[in-house]
Amino acid sequence: MTATSKRSEIRRLPERGTYDRSVIDAILDEALICHVAFADDDGRPVVIPTIHARVGDVLYLHGSPASRMLRGIPNQQVSVAATLLDGLVLAKSHMHHSMNYRSVVAFGTARAVTDPDEKAVAFRAIVEHLVEGRWERARQPNDQEFKATSVVAVDIEEASAKRRSGPPGDDEEDLALPYWAGVVPVALQAGPPVPESDAPLPDHVAGWDPSPGV
Amino acid sequence: MTATSKRSEIRRLPERGTYDRSVIDAILDEALICHVAFADDDGRPVVIPTIHARVGDVLYLHGSPASRMLRGIPNQQVSVAATLLDGLVLAKSHMHHSMNYRSVVAFGTARAVTDPDEKAVAFRAIVEHLVEGRWERARQPNDQEFKATSVVAVDIEEASAKRRSGPPGDDEEDLALPYWAGVVPVALQAGPPVPESDAPLPDHVAGWDPSPGV
Repeated sequence: MTATSKRSEIRRLPERGTYDRSVIDAILDEALICHVAFADDDGRPVVIPTIHARVGDVLYLHGSPASRMLRGIPNQQVSVAATLLDGLVLAKSHMHHSMNYRSVVAFGTARAVTDPDEKAVAFRAIVEHLVEGRWERARQPNDQEFKATSVVAVDIEEASAKRRSGPPGDDEEDLALPYWAGVVPVALQAGPPVPESDAPLPDHVAGWDPSPGV
Repeated sequence: MTATSKRSEIRRLPERGTYDRSVIDAILDEALICHVAFADDDGRPVVIPTIHARVGDVLYLHGSPASRMLRGIPNQQVSVAATLLDGLVLAKSHMHHSMNYRSVVAFGTARAVTDPDEKAVAFRAIVEHLVEGRWERARQPNDQEFKATSVVAVDIEEASAKRRSGPPGDDEEDLALPYWAGVVPVALQAGPPVPESDAPLPDHVAGWDPSPGV
């Protein structure tokens, strides 16, 4: 994974951007879903939300073999974004209103995963990405389910992250205006689990935090 | 806005899909950000997260005139997704793990907004989309700021929504397995506002809810 081409060069507000691999990985790993952009059969852009998991430089996507995206993207260039919202930034002037956020935009080539060993790695990674500790605590795929699920790998070639945090950046001459300014933090939060079974609530569910990086 | 071409036809799990305009609008309006997919100068797909606002059949995007996306997309086909996460669905089998969510995928053609009246409508809509009541409670753009901000309209030509809600859909033969199954609701929630001014906390900030549809 490199970040040397114009495609992933951060041009706007470069002070918010980074190519730091640990920052990129942390955002991809915290985001429960990503958005995948690809070209359809007519070359027009399409964006689809989907669950993912990162293993090294690879993002795994999965779904039905009938999925338009999973059938269409192998051997194609795709772009993947993962975005976390951290706060609403309210300034004295509308001009400086903003969001606090962490986001990654990645580029890579997709390929169908046919090797059973790699497919098994992907299944496990996708479940563990959603809820750590879940893989051993639900029934694992049987042969039929294993075959009935497609996995596509996106080998990440370039990626960059952008972040904004902290208070609004109002202009000096606006500071005395009487408007309220500040940040309203936001985070994806879990509510009380709604059981569909008599099993006692296990630790991996009780302790699940959809925003571990906040 | 119609939904008649193959591009926005819902083929996977059609019971989760709808072309109902009120459902589509509600999701676009609740989502604080969207993801925009477009083709770069070399025809490769790129996806970027950004703030938006919907006015009728138009999605407005804004930013710096130097923004690669805002400079690149006018007169191009783009795809826009808005996605809300509502819950983690934990089943007895991994096969039936899922997310509860509401999402919209829209397609349209982008155009640069140069008419000052439409630009003013877009500015107001974008601020009010983030926080209702904010437009009159911060300093509005001066001439220089007005000119220094680009607005692009995406005239939506097609859109569809998908939703999943409710408990896991386990297979009958898995129901007796001893694993915990159920749903962990998730929602984007606001924390206590962090003031950057001495102004008393106004109602439009104190009452702000990033997940009004939950």
